[in-house]
Amino acid sequence: MKNILVINTGGTFNKTYNPITGELEIDKEGNGLKEIEKLWLNGFKVINIIAKDSLDMTKEDRALIVKTIKKSLEKRIIIVHGTDTMDKSAKVLAEAKLNKKIILTGAMMPYSINSIEATANFCSAYGYITACNKKGVYISMNGKIDNYKRVSKNKEKGYFVETK
Amino acid sequence: MKNILVINTGGTFNKTYNPITGELEIDKEGNGLKEIEKLWLNGFKVINIIAKDSLDMTKEDRALIVKTIKKSLEKRIIIVHGTDTMDKSAKVLAEAKLNKKIILTGAMMPYSINSIEATANFCSAYGYITACNKKGVYISMNGKIDNYKRVSKNKEKGYFVETK
Amino acid sequence: MKNILVINTGGTFNKTYNPITGELEIDKEGNGLKEIEKLWLNGFKVINIIAKDSLDMTKEDRALIVKTIKKSLEKRIIIVHGTDTMDKSAKVLAEAKLNKKIILTGAMMPYSINSIEATANFCSAYGYITACNKKGVYISMNGKIDNYKRVSKNKEKGYFVETK
Amino acid sequence: MKNILVINTGGTFNKTYNPITGELEIDKEGNGLKEIEKLWLNGFKVINIIAKDSLDMTKEDRALIVKTIKKSLEKRIIIVHGTDTMDKSAKVLAEAKLNKKIILTGAMMPYSINSIEATANFCSAYGYITACNKKGVYISMNGKIDNYKRVSKNKEKGYFVETK
Repeated sequence: MKNILVINTGGTFNKTYNPITGELEIDKEGNGLKEIEKLWLNGFKVINIIAKDSLDMTKEDRALIVKTIKKSLEKRIIIVHGTDTMDKSAKVLAEAKLNKKIILTGAMMPYSINSIEATANFCSAYGYITACNKKGVYISMNGKIDNYKRVSKNKEKGYFVETK
Repeated sequence: MKNILVINTGGTFNKTYNPITGELEIDKEGNGLKEIEKLWLNGFKVINIIAKDSLDMTKEDRALIVKTIKKSLEKRIIIVHGTDTMDKSAKVLAEAKLNKKIILTGAMMPYSINSIEATANFCSAYGYITACNKKGVYISMNGKIDNYKRVSKNKEKGYFVETK
Repeated sequence: MKNILVINTGGTFNKTYNPITGELEIDKEGNGLKEIEKLWLNGFKVINIIAKDSLDMTKEDRALIVKTIKKSLEKRIIIVHGTDTMDKSAKVLAEAKLNKKIILTGAMMPYSINSIEATANFCSAYGYITACNKKGVYISMNGKIDNYKRVSKNKEKGYFVETK
Repeated sequence: MKNILVINTGGTFNKTYNPITGELEIDKEGNGLKEIEKLWLNGFKVINIIAKDSLDMTKEDRALIVKTIKKSLEKRIIIVHGTDTMDKSAKVLAEAKLNKKIILTGAMMPYSINSIEATANFCSAYGYITACNKKGVYISMNGKIDNYKRVSKNKEKGYFVETK
């Protein structure tokens, strides 16, 4: 099998409910990914960094993603990311010319609330990047999977669409 | 997006519990796939045929899969199939030289019991076949995705492994 | 069977995630209770009123609960209520001397996130009020079920305890 | 709180899917009850015995249930039991004149497949037996809760009804 590195940066995918505060918080330990890994009987390597809502991501955070990818040995990378600025990080990654196959994914609903959508997004990214034979930066959200320039979030509808 | 046809033939993926008889039965309407489609906000085309445990599949059943693929307009095909004879159907499909990109997937646990594993298998197949640029017959099970000759079921362990 | 009226006033029990806004909202239609009813094969009567976080409940809201109970024909009442002011509403109901068997319940986690806790709280209230042979106002939360004066929320721990 | 002993004897409630054999088996460790206990934040005492489909229960098995209750200090007992012979065990328990408050419950769907129905049955039994002030043998299934003579399984419909 192709070696794949999963970089988990936070976003809705990782939100969990805190019964004491009544708020949704980003789980820094990536338990959603751990549960997929366990229930899927698959062993993939995960690095948890940043743990932010993507609206709160800074230039430094994006630089850290680039640096993490540069340091990695894997040629195939999945980034779990918030949906609101997924396009922005994708652009930064494309401009960094990392010479790898990189795919961004995430979820409109937290894994802890609707595990199907989050699992489907992550695993379709996993399948795509396994087969992918062209370096570049891709997005995989609700079945739309392509170069990051051709998939974008429709904020009114709450899902991703192909960009004309 | 690439057009993909999903051919659902039954197998563990589709088993559901009948509270009257206390037995697991194959759901002929493919409600598991319908639920993934709905929760994932994706629209994929599904044909339900055969609806059998793959141990009960006959030569005629496999001929029907071949025929269904030949008649279809789509160049990318996902087959949801029981795990016990997935290799056998894959071989029949390879020998039929269908000139398409075909991937078989399924589940060790019914979608109705462990929806994560079934969703993960199906969606990783979906991602792989979307990116795939070489005609052939592939298998996608618990994160192992490759030409059908290189992925096989380990019946003692209850999951799929890479074939040396 | 004893006739039971369920009055659903909102609270955490009914919160659902809105993927467009990224916020938890109170579902005014009580779909959590509908799902329990359907999956449990039980038919209970539900009235949805108020639909508020219990911290936002006003004097008028509590008067409406009292009025709704007074108008009802049922002698056994379950109130689904937010946990933060469950004690306050219980006191108002006790002082209204309604001459019925009334039990308040709710959830620390939304039904849409952890359906087990919400189902367990609701159904233990259902069982208790079915067997109850003494008029009064009760609370049922995480297995603590008694007169409302003897069960209260521990806000630090995030669950209900017996009051000494 | 009232002390309650839970005696788990098996039945559909405890069935889990074995992916190696493709069969449903009775989980001898009662993980369904453990999960309810954990997610409900409640601590109840459970004894796991027999672990059988209730159609396979023998006279000796029923004698063991009687003996287990006799030896227990608790005055309130919940028995998790298969649905097909729940009535038969209830009759044996009634004839044993155990001088306790005993309630039988179970599930039409395994907890591992539909956790709502199983949780609802168990927790309504829990609530009922907490409030119950009359010794006897009761059944709690899908919201029908009463003396065991007045609740029975409708095998065609697949749920419990009140006996006229």
